[in-house]
Amino acid sequence: MIQLHRDTRILIVGLGLLGGSYALALKKKGFRCIYGLARRQETVDYALEHGMIDEGSCHVDADLIGRAEIIIFALYPTVLVKWVEKNGHLIREGTVVTDVTGVKSCIIDPVVRALPQGVQFVSVHPMAGKEVGGIENADETIFQGANYIVVPTEQNTEDAIRLCEDLGAELGFGRISRLTPQEHDEMIAFLSQLTHCVAVSLMCANDDDRLVRYTGDSFRDLTRIARINDEMWSELFLLNKDALLQQMDRFTAQMEKMRGYLSTNDREGLREMMRISTARRGKFDKK
Amino acid sequence: MIQLHRDTRILIVGLGLLGGSYALALKKKGFRCIYGLARRQETVDYALEHGMIDEGSCHVDADLIGRAEIIIFALYPTVLVKWVEKNGHLIREGTVVTDVTGVKSCIIDPVVRALPQGVQFVSVHPMAGKEVGGIENADETIFQGANYIVVPTEQNTEDAIRLCEDLGAELGFGRISRLTPQEHDEMIAFLSQLTHCVAVSLMCANDDDRLVRYTGDSFRDLTRIARINDEMWSELFLLNKDALLQQMDRFTAQMEKMRGYLSTNDREGLREMMRISTARRGKFDKK
Repeated sequence: MIQLHRDTRILIVGLGLLGGSYALALKKKGFRCIYGLARRQETVDYALEHGMIDEGSCHVDADLIGRAEIIIFALYPTVLVKWVEKNGHLIREGTVVTDVTGVKSCIIDPVVRALPQGVQFVSVHPMAGKEVGGIENADETIFQGANYIVVPTEQNTEDAIRLCEDLGAELGFGRISRLTPQEHDEMIAFLSQLTHCVAVSLMCANDDDRLVRYTGDSFRDLTRIARINDEMWSELFLLNKDALLQQMDRFTAQMEKMRGYLSTNDREGLREMMRISTARRGKFDKK
Repeated sequence: MIQLHRDTRILIVGLGLLGGSYALALKKKGFRCIYGLARRQETVDYALEHGMIDEGSCHVDADLIGRAEIIIFALYPTVLVKWVEKNGHLIREGTVVTDVTGVKSCIIDPVVRALPQGVQFVSVHPMAGKEVGGIENADETIFQGANYIVVPTEQNTEDAIRLCEDLGAELGFGRISRLTPQEHDEMIAFLSQLTHCVAVSLMCANDDDRLVRYTGDSFRDLTRIARINDEMWSELFLLNKDALLQQMDRFTAQMEKMRGYLSTNDREGLREMMRISTARRGKFDKK
């Protein structure tokens, strides 16, 4: 079984914000065999010049892929599936494959089907990011204390799952936990996708140019993620459509409830909702 | 006309989070005659012990009120109106009265009516706060770079308005601007009250105890203000009900629009909303 140590050979496919941040985190931890694949030569050059990878290529480099013991896919969900369907045969038996994808039910099966026998796919969702993308914004500190969700399947061995959990610990993540694909997708529809819907809707609801002169931190906090990668997030929303629609409806029902209390001057109803939210939110501060 | 200098006598009525932060900011700037009134003796003692005020009382102290050249009310809106109706006659002619209240249309008239002839009320909304209250959480750094909205009436002299603007600059506020009461209340319904409705509704929409294990920063950011002072905020909502209901409806319409795009797989519709929000949000970063 593969062990995680300074000379474990790790290939990162996709050197955007997350792939680049993985590379940075691993190099800072002293890993000596970090490889990278990117679409553009400039990205590979940037990663090499900044000491983020030891070797890289802008081609589907069979040599690097064959050498890797762990492959981390940091690609958009649909790009990941297509990549594996086209190039999965290049992956050596015994390799452990993982990812950073934000939706799970719809990608795990096609990826597993496209991989050769003897290659395990242990899917992972690192709950970290930024509102700006690209390797030049890579930053390993985004993982500090963040949550790391492992989404194994019944085909995964405990060894392979542990390896991916150890990787999360090396990267600096705080809490590492496991969910089934369906649990993951419901949780993420609420915690991540719904919050982006809300932020975008808030920002779209008012086109007054003067807002910035009068705003406080509340509005800034609620709309930080309204600066959004529209290509990636529209894809994530559509790939998790049913779960997200359900969460949108749950949220809207609460807004309607609050609207009802307000319009009937039901102070106690308003206060009760605020007391519930205050009690629940108390648990969410970062340690 | 009153000038703002180190020996201007300033009385702060209400030593909670905001009143305490005003006191701290002024003392750190070297003001030597800062007085405070609070309901409880312990609060006055705390303020004196921490060098936040030079003199204070837990009574309606006619001597302190009479000596003050500027009075800053840092009270809940309804408490402010009642205080002035009961004790306004103690305020000396020529005094400039200001406040920190988050709603304007409904309080300016009753306050002005209750004040003696020759006392000007220049209403102010400092756009700064914290999700925890009380003098022990007072912190003058919350004003750094924040917005400060002056809401004058036609009865205010330019001198008195300028004095309150100068006070904002001394306190460390970044952008100082003027709005009419109605403009203020519409703006604040959107920027401040609607965001609190959204955060509370998000927090109320899911009671899964495990959420905290899987959350990312997006959800934390969107719900920071869901830890809320239910007494104060239910009052603010009800006092600005019509404007807030209108903003809730504008927001809900955008959520519905997004829901429609998602349910019909309209990727381009989703992306267009995200592009609008990204372009608008770009203007909101703090300088």
